[in-house]
Amino acid sequence: MKIKIIVTLKNGVLDPQGKAIQQTLNGMGFNEVKDVRQGKYFDIDINETDETKAKSKVDEMCKKLLANLVIEDYKIL
Amino acid sequence: MKIKIIVTLKNGVLDPQGKAIQQTLNGMGFNEVKDVRQGKYFDIDINETDETKAKSKVDEMCKKLLANLVIEDYKIL
Repeated sequence: MKIKIIVTLKNGVLDPQGKAIQQTLNGMGFNEVKDVRQGKYFDIDINETDETKAKSKVDEMCKKLLANLVIEDYKIL
Repeated sequence: MKIKIIVTLKNGVLDPQGKAIQQTLNGMGFNEVKDVRQGKYFDIDINETDETKAKSKVDEMCKKLLANLVIEDYKIL
C-alpha cells in the first residue's frame, strides 16, 4: 500500500526558498500572496497490507531518516 | 487564508532522488519499502477570504510557476 507523508519546517524556522517563491509570485503580479512555506512530500510504496502496521513503519522511517525533528515536523496522511 | 499544494512527478518520469531514499531505507533494514517518489509541498498564505477565489488564484500560480506541467502534476488540497 501507498503511504503519503508531508514534511514541513517548524514555525519560526527561516525558509529562504519559500521567501524567494513568494517574492517571485509578487513580482509576477500575484500581490495577494503574503507568505509561502515550502516542504517535502513523500509517496512510499510499502509491502504491507495492514494500514496501522504500515503507518507505524513509516512513522519510524520519518523519525530515523525522512524528517529532521530539530527543525521539521512531519504528517502522515 | 492558507492553501496547500502538492506537486509530484508524473508517472513514468524517473525520480533518482526517490530511488536514493528507497535504497537508503532498504539499507537501514526497512526491506518492505518497494518504491519512494518524492515531491514538493507548498503552503501559500493568500490575502483572500473567499476559498473558491483563492484556489483559482493558486491554480494560476501552479500553472505559471510552481509546477512544470511537462513532467509534474499538482494537486490543491
